[in-house]
Amino acid sequence: MGSKITPRSENYSQWYIDIVQNAGLAENSAVRGCMVIKPYGFAIWERMRDELDRMFKETGHSNAYFPIFIPKSFFSKEASHVEGFAKECAVVTHYRLKNAPDGSGVVVDEDAKLEEELIVRPTSETIIWDTYRSWIQSYRDLPLLINQWANVVRWEMRTRLFLRTAEFLWQEGHTAHATETEAIEEAERMLGVYASFAEDWMAMPVLKGVKSANERFAGAVETYCIEALMQDGKALQAGTSHFLGQNFAKAFDVKFLSNENQLEYVWATSWGVSTRLMGALIMTHSDDKGLVLPPTLAPIQVVLVPIFKNEEMKPKILEYLKGIEAELKEKKIVVKVDDSENYSPGYKFAEYEMKGVPVRIAIGARDVENNTVEVARRDTLTKESAGREGIADRIFALLVDIQRNLYQKALELRKNLTYSVDTWDEFVDVIENKGGFVYAHWDGTTETEEKIKELTKATIRLIPLEEGEAGNCVLTGKPSAKRVVFAKAY
Amino acid sequence: MGSKITPRSENYSQWYIDIVQNAGLAENSAVRGCMVIKPYGFAIWERMRDELDRMFKETGHSNAYFPIFIPKSFFSKEASHVEGFAKECAVVTHYRLKNAPDGSGVVVDEDAKLEEELIVRPTSETIIWDTYRSWIQSYRDLPLLINQWANVVRWEMRTRLFLRTAEFLWQEGHTAHATETEAIEEAERMLGVYASFAEDWMAMPVLKGVKSANERFAGAVETYCIEALMQDGKALQAGTSHFLGQNFAKAFDVKFLSNENQLEYVWATSWGVSTRLMGALIMTHSDDKGLVLPPTLAPIQVVLVPIFKNEEMKPKILEYLKGIEAELKEKKIVVKVDDSENYSPGYKFAEYEMKGVPVRIAIGARDVENNTVEVARRDTLTKESAGREGIADRIFALLVDIQRNLYQKALELRKNLTYSVDTWDEFVDVIENKGGFVYAHWDGTTETEEKIKELTKATIRLIPLEEGEAGNCVLTGKPSAKRVVFAKAY
Repeated sequence: MGSKITPRSENYSQWYIDIVQNAGLAENSAVRGCMVIKPYGFAIWERMRDELDRMFKETGHSNAYFPIFIPKSFFSKEASHVEGFAKECAVVTHYRLKNAPDGSGVVVDEDAKLEEELIVRPTSETIIWDTYRSWIQSYRDLPLLINQWANVVRWEMRTRLFLRTAEFLWQEGHTAHATETEAIEEAERMLGVYASFAEDWMAMPVLKGVKSANERFAGAVETYCIEALMQDGKALQAGTSHFLGQNFAKAFDVKFLSNENQLEYVWATSWGVSTRLMGALIMTHSDDKGLVLPPTLAPIQVVLVPIFKNEEMKPKILEYLKGIEAELKEKKIVVKVDDSENYSPGYKFAEYEMKGVPVRIAIGARDVENNTVEVARRDTLTKESAGREGIADRIFALLVDIQRNLYQKALELRKNLTYSVDTWDEFVDVIENKGGFVYAHWDGTTETEEKIKELTKATIRLIPLEEGEAGNCVLTGKPSAKRVVFAKAY
Repeated sequence: MGSKITPRSENYSQWYIDIVQNAGLAENSAVRGCMVIKPYGFAIWERMRDELDRMFKETGHSNAYFPIFIPKSFFSKEASHVEGFAKECAVVTHYRLKNAPDGSGVVVDEDAKLEEELIVRPTSETIIWDTYRSWIQSYRDLPLLINQWANVVRWEMRTRLFLRTAEFLWQEGHTAHATETEAIEEAERMLGVYASFAEDWMAMPVLKGVKSANERFAGAVETYCIEALMQDGKALQAGTSHFLGQNFAKAFDVKFLSNENQLEYVWATSWGVSTRLMGALIMTHSDDKGLVLPPTLAPIQVVLVPIFKNEEMKPKILEYLKGIEAELKEKKIVVKVDDSENYSPGYKFAEYEMKGVPVRIAIGARDVENNTVEVARRDTLTKESAGREGIADRIFALLVDIQRNLYQKALELRKNLTYSVDTWDEFVDVIENKGGFVYAHWDGTTETEEKIKELTKATIRLIPLEEGEAGNCVLTGKPSAKRVVFAKAY
């Protein structure tokens, strides 16, 4: 603690790294590209995971677990999957080590070479659809609604804690349906779940839409996504949900007997969010003092810090503080009492600010005498003296207000950084000088999309789900059915 | 469903496999030795995991996450760890695939060979202690109490669902302490947590003790364990907790400044349980009709099945049933209503028996008329008609009784299969003809231990923590400080 954070205005990337490190969220490991998620960071991830898991179960899904390894040949079975999917994967070729003959340690035992290499899963469609073949016989077995919490590996060359790492944690839903309509409904339902989670729990407003053909998941017919805007005006894809058609069912020969007694291929979806959400959470709310957390996801919602000036008042202050702690716990507020004497109150204040604890209550001798407390809120960095009576109700209301305020601030930021442009000059000007989401017309071709990316680094983040007015492509002037959303992205 | 289960008396191993498959718990995957944990099996594991996690947090531990890959050289750093640890590991040698030149699929890109091979973690002491070096500076950073839930891989040649698989799920606690005493206390505390979990939640009695030097974890100074007895008289190691001394601290150079301002090596523990507990749970309670689950771990505690004889009574039966469902839920009992008309009541009864649902309530027209229900309990396979009034209280009490009964039955079995022998002939007779736990004197040498194993396949499961009377080794006649526990084991 006590470490300096680089201001956002000076160096946004360094600011992000400083927060992740100083708030004790994660760090790089001895293995290139793989991170260690530290206890405080993991506690936030656990809250996200538990809430998402609850939402998945409420919408009828069950968890299961599939192997971490996938036989290499499986990747060749779905043509567009193998074509489109990045080939940067960890490849297992041997299954044994042995002592080095010279006693220097261990070496790979060349006699223990696998007949077929195994790939550490980058995503599990192939191994799961290979399994579903024996699970699905008839329409009675459908829909099959399964989710898996797992680690996956993609050998990224340039990594960044939480945002892009070689190994990351995620959930992947894989569902099977009797009809196309049901599968599309499922993909859209899960997009809705992700959007609710982002807005209600992460206090992070998101846009919903579909990806252009170019940005679709390898093997998908349609990729739905939610996109959030970070404080630096760059977009971040926060979750995707794919309608996979019958592509994987055909590749892995998964058929079912319909209630009309016809043998038909199954319809599929898959959907996922990952520890990348941690990066989104950090960048949406934090400031130059450190992490800022929405109360719903904070591992500590309120920290109580006693301020001792002399030994005499200590027992009285502690008793007063314990009373408040009990009342807050009664209200299901997650409280931490930090009465350690290793550190000064000022040091503690800075530490909990750095860690983004939403509310701090400090209690000194004068508070005990006057029946007051000092309440500081992390989001606005303001503090005030308040009466002791009814403290739990007021703190509860304050947490609700902080949650709302964080969402509003993020929404405000997005509004201020959302543009609608009609000419190429405007487009370039906004993308280069302002950032943010840019609504513009596009002629619908991959060629134009790639040309725009080449010229400005902006990509189509999504095509909105709603209908829109027709117009002319901002680059080519050709007809466009509706505006799409461009941005530079993480 | 409707599949036959091989009786235990006929073929115990096949009985186990039949239960795992027919109850929908797990199955083998396309990857040799790796299992798929199916939704119902995973739901049981989730309950175990959630409860253990709660117990770990109550004893002051936090979760974190460390990389799945470990650089090969790390295994050479702690001499006894590398010497003792099985070398059957999955080895990652490459990080990229490419399209095969002949268009036949993907092949490993030989240009993407890692400079140093990575091992898929078989356990994480090495990578974690490499990380702790920067986390621990002073006595203020201690104790460090961390747990990780993760998948690990050990390339077992002969695998068996849940009991021994190449990939399995587990938790591994890794703690660091300022003193030897504190570390030993921690190792013993976590053994106690495991024993409480086994007995109170799994309804599975366990013995506590330490391993002989020969059976110790590679790198440990002392290995504590809990051992359970299966219905076939074989022992199963259900959890271990290791006092690691300063071995890993020395190997990874982890020192701290003590409060006497001395630079000292840190003291360590590690402890773990895995999906192997699923195998123990299945084998402890199940019978020839299928799985039997203790109510505390059952994903469905009570199933409600309506019995329709004619259309007219259907709405009345359903209304009656919904009233009961609501009352049970009010009591926090996990209820499933199976009112589907795809299957007959008889088929459903067999299905829920197979799945080990502790209590089944069937409701027909006559029940509605007489204000009764039919209650069947899975553990005793008995059923009786009961009054509708006060149903929730009675079902709650019944679940408690089932939990207690399962524990008592298992304890009874263990008592009947526990022997104390003084001669070699008795020893051989019991091990070969009766099975179970055999208390016998042992001279304390690895040589004798191995000789006994060679002659009878029995191993020392544990050395009891309590003091005992001295005697003479059952094989060599040499002096023995106290009896140890032998058994054949899984």
